[in-house]
Amino acid sequence: MAAEQDPEGRAAARPLLTDLYQATMALGYWRAGRAQEAAEFELFFRRCPFGGAFALAAGLRDCVRFLRAFRLRDADVQFLASVLPPDTEPAFFEHLRALDCSGVTVRALPEGSLAFPGVPLLQVSGPLLVVQLLETPLLCLVSYASLIATNAARLRLIAGPEKRLLEMGLRRAQGPDGGLTASTYSYLGGFDGSSNVLAGQLRGVPVAGTLAHSFVTSFSGAEVPPDPMLAPAAGQGPRVDLAACVEVWLERVCAHLGLGAQEPHPGERAAFVAYALAFPRAFQGLLDTYSVRRFQVPWLASVPIAVSNNIDEEELARLAQKGSEVDLIGIGTSVVTCPRQPSLGCVYKLVAVGGQPRMKLTEDPEKQTLPGSKAAFRLLGADGSLLLDVLQLAEEPPPQAGQELRLWPRGARESCTVRPAHVEPLLRLWVQQGQLCEPLPSLAESRAFAQLSLSRLSPAHRRLEQPEQYQVALSEKLQALVNRLRALGPQ
Amino acid sequence: MAAEQDPEGRAAARPLLTDLYQATMALGYWRAGRAQEAAEFELFFRRCPFGGAFALAAGLRDCVRFLRAFRLRDADVQFLASVLPPDTEPAFFEHLRALDCSGVTVRALPEGSLAFPGVPLLQVSGPLLVVQLLETPLLCLVSYASLIATNAARLRLIAGPEKRLLEMGLRRAQGPDGGLTASTYSYLGGFDGSSNVLAGQLRGVPVAGTLAHSFVTSFSGAEVPPDPMLAPAAGQGPRVDLAACVEVWLERVCAHLGLGAQEPHPGERAAFVAYALAFPRAFQGLLDTYSVRRFQVPWLASVPIAVSNNIDEEELARLAQKGSEVDLIGIGTSVVTCPRQPSLGCVYKLVAVGGQPRMKLTEDPEKQTLPGSKAAFRLLGADGSLLLDVLQLAEEPPPQAGQELRLWPRGARESCTVRPAHVEPLLRLWVQQGQLCEPLPSLAESRAFAQLSLSRLSPAHRRLEQPEQYQVALSEKLQALVNRLRALGPQ
Repeated sequence: MAAEQDPEGRAAARPLLTDLYQATMALGYWRAGRAQEAAEFELFFRRCPFGGAFALAAGLRDCVRFLRAFRLRDADVQFLASVLPPDTEPAFFEHLRALDCSGVTVRALPEGSLAFPGVPLLQVSGPLLVVQLLETPLLCLVSYASLIATNAARLRLIAGPEKRLLEMGLRRAQGPDGGLTASTYSYLGGFDGSSNVLAGQLRGVPVAGTLAHSFVTSFSGAEVPPDPMLAPAAGQGPRVDLAACVEVWLERVCAHLGLGAQEPHPGERAAFVAYALAFPRAFQGLLDTYSVRRFQVPWLASVPIAVSNNIDEEELARLAQKGSEVDLIGIGTSVVTCPRQPSLGCVYKLVAVGGQPRMKLTEDPEKQTLPGSKAAFRLLGADGSLLLDVLQLAEEPPPQAGQELRLWPRGARESCTVRPAHVEPLLRLWVQQGQLCEPLPSLAESRAFAQLSLSRLSPAHRRLEQPEQYQVALSEKLQALVNRLRALGPQ
Repeated sequence: MAAEQDPEGRAAARPLLTDLYQATMALGYWRAGRAQEAAEFELFFRRCPFGGAFALAAGLRDCVRFLRAFRLRDADVQFLASVLPPDTEPAFFEHLRALDCSGVTVRALPEGSLAFPGVPLLQVSGPLLVVQLLETPLLCLVSYASLIATNAARLRLIAGPEKRLLEMGLRRAQGPDGGLTASTYSYLGGFDGSSNVLAGQLRGVPVAGTLAHSFVTSFSGAEVPPDPMLAPAAGQGPRVDLAACVEVWLERVCAHLGLGAQEPHPGERAAFVAYALAFPRAFQGLLDTYSVRRFQVPWLASVPIAVSNNIDEEELARLAQKGSEVDLIGIGTSVVTCPRQPSLGCVYKLVAVGGQPRMKLTEDPEKQTLPGSKAAFRLLGADGSLLLDVLQLAEEPPPQAGQELRLWPRGARESCTVRPAHVEPLLRLWVQQGQLCEPLPSLAESRAFAQLSLSRLSPAHRRLEQPEQYQVALSEKLQALVNRLRALGPQ
C-alpha cells in the first residue's frame, strides 16, 4: 500500500488510537484461529442529529488517509505487549507487526452525501482481526466529521446562500485536532472559510481574519507610528500622513455628530490607524457593539459588516432576516462544539463473517442490527425529488427505474410499494484490497456536492425543526433474512 | 530552547494551529514597531462550567510541550505569505522565521488546582508579537483539558472513591486528538483509566478493556476452538477441555434454573469459551442486560460487574447508590463530549504592555478585564478550609497570615475584611525566558493533587447542583487601578 505523504495524517490518527478491547478481541480471534476470516462491518448512525431529518456524510478522506498509513510500529507492538497478558504468544505480536490494510476494502457514501439512519456511511470488509481493530479510529474519524458537516449545513440553511459564514471556533474546540476537523468539515458542510490557518495549510480551506480586541487594547494612544505616511490606493499622487488626517477628520466627525472631541478613546483610534497603515487595502474596524443607524450617517449603511459572538441557530436566524445589514458572520463555539448534540453516536457493526450474515440480537429493537452484506439505493421521483432509501442484500439485482418494488419501511409493520422514476446507487467502492480505486473528490468538490444534495431534499425533510422523517426501507429478501435470524435467536 | 522529544507533541498542536487574525495582528504590531514590546496576557474563564462552583486547571503540560517546540518552519512562513497581503515586507517573514519562545515566561496554576472565575490559569509574558500568536493554541490546549478534568472530577464526586471509573469515549470524541485529550485529562480529574491505548502509550494513562459485542456476534457456535484445553490456574494438575466442560455445566445449570438447554444462544457460548481460552485469568462475560438476582444464585452476587451505556451524572448517581453491586463503570460520550456544556469558554486577555496596565473597556461588565500584572493567593481558615482567592498587583507584598486584609469581592459593591490563618500563593513560575524552571509533576501526581484540592473545598462549594459561589476578591490597590482606568475610558 502506498505510503501516506501527509505526515500530519499519521500523527492525527495512529493505529493505537483505539480501545484496548479491540486489541484483546484481536487476541481472542487470533487464538480462536479466526484472524484471517473474511468479515464485513457497517458504520452507520441510528438517529439524525440535532432533531433534524438528515445528516451529511463526511470523514471519508481522513479514513482513507488513516487506512493507507495503517501499520503498527515496533514501539506500538511493544506497548500492546506491556498491557496484554504476559503469557501472550510472541507469534501474535509477529502477526500484529505484519498487519496492514492491504486486505481491506471500503465502500462508502461520497462525502457530502445525504445520510439517513441505518444506511451505511462506510462498509469495511477484510480479515476479521484487522477490520475489528479499525472500529474505534474509523468511528472517531467519521462521527465528528459528519456531525460538524451537518451542523454547518443547518447553519447555512438558516443563513441563506448570500451571507458569508466563517468558522472561528478553534479556541473552543475539543482539542487541537478537533479544531482542525471542525474547520475542515464546516467548510464541507457549507461555510465559506475558517480562521484556522492550519486548516488552510493542510486542507486547503479558505482562511480569513482581521483583528481581535487585544490589538485594540494594546494601544494607549501615546504610540508614534514609525511611518504614518500612506500612498494612495491607485498608486499615484502624494502620500498622506494618515495619523494627522485622522485627527483632522476626528474633529469634523465629532462636530457633525455632536460629540466632544475627547469622547472617542485615543487608544482605540491609534489601534485603528496602526491597522489601517498595516492593511491599507483591507482595513477593518472592531467594535464591541455597533449601530449604523444611531448617527444617521447614510454612507455607514454601505460599509460591509462582520459580526461574531455566541451566534447559535436562533441568533443566526435573527441576523439572517431580510434587511439585515450584516455581510459576514463569524461562528465559533456553536458550530465547533455542536452544543445541541456534541456527538453523532455512530456505530460499527459486524454484518457478515465467513460469508454468513450476522445480526446483533437484543431486547432493545433500536439496537438490533441489519444482517448481511448489503447494497443501498436512493429512489427518486420523476421530478428528481428523493422518495426513500432502500437497503437490500448485495446479491440482489439493483432496483430498476419504472418497476414497482415491494419494500419494508424500517419501523413499519406493513410493506409498501414504490415505483421510482430514477434509482441511484449510494455506496461507492473507494478502496479495494488496500488500493485506492479512484481519487477522492477535493474538499471544494465535496462542498458543492453537499449543497446540491441538500437542494434535492424536500422542504419537509430539510426543515430543521420537527421535520418529516425520511424513510429507509428494506427489500423483501433482506426483511426475510432479518425475520429468519430473529426467529433463530433468543426471545 | 531544548527541542521537544515527543514527536506527537509537535504534530498535535503546531504554530499554525491558530487564527489568521493572530497573524494579521502580528503584522500590525510589527509595522507599528511594537513586535518586541513587553506584554503580558492572562488566560482565565468567567464562569465555572456545568453550573458548578469550581473547575480544575489542566492542560499546562500540553502548553509547555507546545511552547518548547514552537518554531515556524519554512513551509509555515510560506503559507502565511500566501494569505497575507502581497506587499508584505520580506523582513516581516524573516522575523517570523526567527521566532521562538525563548523570550516567553509562563506562570500558571499547577495542574489539578482548583480554579475560579477570573483567576488566571496561565500568565504569559514576553514580546508582544509572539505572546499574541500564542493566544489561540494556548486557549485550545487549556480550555478543553480543564473542562474534561472538571467533568471527570464531578463524576468522581458522584461515584464516590470506591467505584472504578473507566473513560471509554474515544469513538464519540470530537476528533482523534480530542479523544487523546479526553483520556488524559479525565484521568487527571479522577478517573481510574481509559480504554484509549494511545493515551496509555503517550501519556501513561492506565488502560483497560475486555471485549465488545462484535466479538460475541462473530461466533455462530459452529466454530471449533483450535485448542480447547485449559491448564489449571495454579499451574499443576491435568489440563481440561473447556468447551466440553461448558457443555456439561450448561445442562446442569439449565436444569437448576429450569431453562431448556436450547435457550442459551450457542454463538454467545462459543464466544465466551473462546474469550476464556484467550484470557483464562481475565475472563469477562458481556451481556446486554443483567440481573444477578433473577435466578437466586447467591454466588453470582460476588462476581465483579462492569457496566456501560450512556451513563451521565444522573445515571451514575443511581448506580453509585449504596448497595449497588456494580464495581466498574465505563463512561463514554458524557465524559468526553461534555454534553451539558461542551466548551469552557476561556479567554486570553492583554493585561499589560510596555509596563503599563491595560484593561478592556466595554459596556458588558462581565467582559471587562482586570488590568495589570498580578499575583494570586488563596486564603484559608484555621482548619485549612478555603476562604477566598485574592488577586492583587504583582508589586504588592503578599498577604500575611493572621493579618486583617481589606478586599473587594468581585461583583460586590462593598469591601470586606478577612483575617486568613494561612495564605497560599497560587501561580507558579514554570517557564522563564523559555527555560523550564522545574519538572512538571507527573500525570498521576497531578491526579492526586486534584483529589486533595477537592477535599479541601467546603461541601457548599463542592456541591454539583446550585452550589454556593466561591469568592474571588481584589486587593484595594487593584480595585483602585480598575476604578482609575474605568474613569479614563469611554462611558
